[in-house]
Amino acid sequence: MSADDPKMADEPKEISGETKLRVRYAETDKMGVVYHSNFVIWFEVGRVELLRQLGFEYKTMEQQDNCHIPVVDLRVRYKSPALYDDEIVVRTRLGNARHSLLHFLYEVARASDGTLLATGETTHIIVDDKFQRCALPEKYMKAFGGKRRIANS
Amino acid sequence: MSADDPKMADEPKEISGETKLRVRYAETDKMGVVYHSNFVIWFEVGRVELLRQLGFEYKTMEQQDNCHIPVVDLRVRYKSPALYDDEIVVRTRLGNARHSLLHFLYEVARASDGTLLATGETTHIIVDDKFQRCALPEKYMKAFGGKRRIANS
Amino acid sequence: MSADDPKMADEPKEISGETKLRVRYAETDKMGVVYHSNFVIWFEVGRVELLRQLGFEYKTMEQQDNCHIPVVDLRVRYKSPALYDDEIVVRTRLGNARHSLLHFLYEVARASDGTLLATGETTHIIVDDKFQRCALPEKYMKAFGGKRRIANS
Amino acid sequence: MSADDPKMADEPKEISGETKLRVRYAETDKMGVVYHSNFVIWFEVGRVELLRQLGFEYKTMEQQDNCHIPVVDLRVRYKSPALYDDEIVVRTRLGNARHSLLHFLYEVARASDGTLLATGETTHIIVDDKFQRCALPEKYMKAFGGKRRIANS
Repeated sequence: MSADDPKMADEPKEISGETKLRVRYAETDKMGVVYHSNFVIWFEVGRVELLRQLGFEYKTMEQQDNCHIPVVDLRVRYKSPALYDDEIVVRTRLGNARHSLLHFLYEVARASDGTLLATGETTHIIVDDKFQRCALPEKYMKAFGGKRRIANS
Repeated sequence: MSADDPKMADEPKEISGETKLRVRYAETDKMGVVYHSNFVIWFEVGRVELLRQLGFEYKTMEQQDNCHIPVVDLRVRYKSPALYDDEIVVRTRLGNARHSLLHFLYEVARASDGTLLATGETTHIIVDDKFQRCALPEKYMKAFGGKRRIANS
Repeated sequence: MSADDPKMADEPKEISGETKLRVRYAETDKMGVVYHSNFVIWFEVGRVELLRQLGFEYKTMEQQDNCHIPVVDLRVRYKSPALYDDEIVVRTRLGNARHSLLHFLYEVARASDGTLLATGETTHIIVDDKFQRCALPEKYMKAFGGKRRIANS
Repeated sequence: MSADDPKMADEPKEISGETKLRVRYAETDKMGVVYHSNFVIWFEVGRVELLRQLGFEYKTMEQQDNCHIPVVDLRVRYKSPALYDDEIVVRTRLGNARHSLLHFLYEVARASDGTLLATGETTHIIVDDKFQRCALPEKYMKAFGGKRRIANS
């Protein structure tokens, strides 16, 4: 799609990516399946890998730009149990990027058969290392398509 | 309050309890606060202790009654960071108990100053050890006030 | 025992304490028992509570005294599985306290029947927040009986 | 190397492998480095991937062969802190395989610069799903070179 494709103005390009991981024994519980809080950690893995695919490292965002994105709202819907040694696909999509707020959506699936295991979403605020709200630096906002959306809405 | 108190019919007694725990070093992250997925584990601690206060043990529920309550929906709203070595109060309230579904609500606060750190809720289905839906055994349903609510609704 | 008790000079008082915790569902694995790395976290709980019983808080040690005690050597011998909802006793004993090194020993047991579940030990160095070796502040060394041992040895 | 290579008789082929993983935010602690118990989980990842490289899956070993290998002895020597987002190499080597005992050795290094972060070892017993000691099935023993070593020693 070229930059002057007329569709682009109305319909911003989806910002999404996927990453894989393998279920660890430590992540299972006595019911024989993955303990549910681990999906929350996998969401974080998905987020960080999406950033990497956009050309950023979250560690640099923290260290050089003093920009941290703590979760303020979390939602998970569990569909089917994840099993030990399953290869897991985490699909992460940027839902919204505003001045000092980010929203991500997730799908977690078993790689071998595509079974959807969970969906979820997280909302993050942008803070400095003193937990004071601040603006998402321009370079991230640009990459996240934040500007365009604000202009459109 | 006697069983024939007229208020009882309309307004079922709240089923809630609280438990305390201490933030472990392992639960903190490099931002110097508790990593957010740990609140999900604390919710589970709150649930289990509420059951214990009602006279039940979740391990017995699993072993003797073949009754497991996996989480199917999770929501957390993070209000303020939990810090290392904080004494934490988890307040758990039974929101709803139906045939094969349970709903709990949580408040997580710092014990020393009462600061609310997070609120949340979880929805659980009742399954056997093969993950097949089943009914919550009568003794639990009774203790959870499930019958009355069904009758009222 | 008075300070001039002749025994005191040769045989320093044992510095030890115990604390209890309850096994969480999240700590179990698909074999139905506690996943082994959790004992390492319990050792840390034991250490911190021993410090508290001596009148210190590890968080203060870090924040006010810029004194951190990372583990450099860890040993665990697993004797018997810990089970979900077990009440666990962690007995921690200070093995040695020197200039910039601490050594702790642990026993982990099931509270209900006293079964020994694991023993272990950890060696720690004293560092500042830049991970540079430094000396254990005098007040801790004194409480840990470090001086006397150095004098005796 | 052919099977009748004279060296083979005296010097069994080293059974080792390596796997990579990325440090998760959840694995860090408030000192800004990886919390030490996570290395124990990484050892497990290393073990399981070594088995996979030998043509086995640990989940199959558990499910089909009713063969579990709980850790009975663990040792870790921490050399240098692992940092958030570090790519980590876990090198796992089979130290010994006997009738009902396995021994593994580990090296954990930072991939980018090769810095050695930790070394360790674990000893495992072979048990069935009732935690009763049993023999390592022949196919594993053969792949692990256990027979030859017994013959040689």
